[in-house]
Amino acid sequence: MEKIPLGPMPYMSVMPTVLVGANVEGKPTYMTAAWATVACMEPPMVCVAVSKARYTAKGIDQNGTFSLNVPSVHQVIPTDYCGIVSGSREDKSGVFRSFYGKLGTAPLAEECPVNIECRLFSSVDCGSHILRVGEVVEVYADRSCTTDGKPDITKITPIVYAQHSYFGVGNPVGKAFSEGRKYRKA
Amino acid sequence: MEKIPLGPMPYMSVMPTVLVGANVEGKPTYMTAAWATVACMEPPMVCVAVSKARYTAKGIDQNGTFSLNVPSVHQVIPTDYCGIVSGSREDKSGVFRSFYGKLGTAPLAEECPVNIECRLFSSVDCGSHILRVGEVVEVYADRSCTTDGKPDITKITPIVYAQHSYFGVGNPVGKAFSEGRKYRKA
Repeated sequence: MEKIPLGPMPYMSVMPTVLVGANVEGKPTYMTAAWATVACMEPPMVCVAVSKARYTAKGIDQNGTFSLNVPSVHQVIPTDYCGIVSGSREDKSGVFRSFYGKLGTAPLAEECPVNIECRLFSSVDCGSHILRVGEVVEVYADRSCTTDGKPDITKITPIVYAQHSYFGVGNPVGKAFSEGRKYRKA
Repeated sequence: MEKIPLGPMPYMSVMPTVLVGANVEGKPTYMTAAWATVACMEPPMVCVAVSKARYTAKGIDQNGTFSLNVPSVHQVIPTDYCGIVSGSREDKSGVFRSFYGKLGTAPLAEECPVNIECRLFSSVDCGSHILRVGEVVEVYADRSCTTDGKPDITKITPIVYAQHSYFGVGNPVGKAFSEGRKYRKA
């Protein structure tokens, strides 16, 4: 196959779509983000890249807390709205109903099926963006979106983000830590 | 809706499936990872959480370089194999053909449709895992997996990772920076 160089760019194949929640001057705001993942197993941590220019960034610094909220494919419109409009221009505190968990300052979006409450662990200044690493203090879920006490993507119907578009999750193609057993060396 | 706390855990709704490549003592090895995302727009950076116990971690430290390689759904078996078997026990240098780019020490898996070549920028010790932040020095793609010079997921057919299983990308549910314009305040 023919490989071609495409130049350096911030590429990732597929990403989650989440809403980063923070209190700015005591009021909740949410911004859409896709540059998020798990950062550590033990203690459990997640991370999200947030532009320095973002209004939500102020809230993360003010409180040392933030949340990641997982919207469903049925919430594409309010989710995308939080990525278009800045909290510095428009009050986004009413886009989702907020509730608070253990930390008291990380707003959690009630309508989102899963909410991850985080205490800021580290901020890595990368340039245009600061990578926010947060220790997960609690995960909340709608009971109706869980199976055997765990979040269930068939019920959550999360949004996959790729090349400036939103997608659902596709068909299963295999179990992890299982498919590889079929591997035979050439 | 009824919210229930599920306890702190390393949760993310959906994730990419990638192969982290590094040279350990001059020889390429690949490990499967899902805890990866973009870390910065400018300069372009990506990050991936790698367990301290991983053989591949040695290579990242030895060279200060690594790669993220995007396999397709047709490569689930060799991809998952690289997550089951440790490079300390089995030589994984033959699972993929390796090529090298600008840095010379970050092996890139030729069979994977997209390859991201990285220079280590920062290592954040989170506990069980170290978050490896890398500056993207080049992105390579199979010409057949691009459209107008950009990677195209309809041709790449990347693997989505969620709750210990692999999935394809599902149906489109909207364009980013567009759907939100339909939002009307309650």
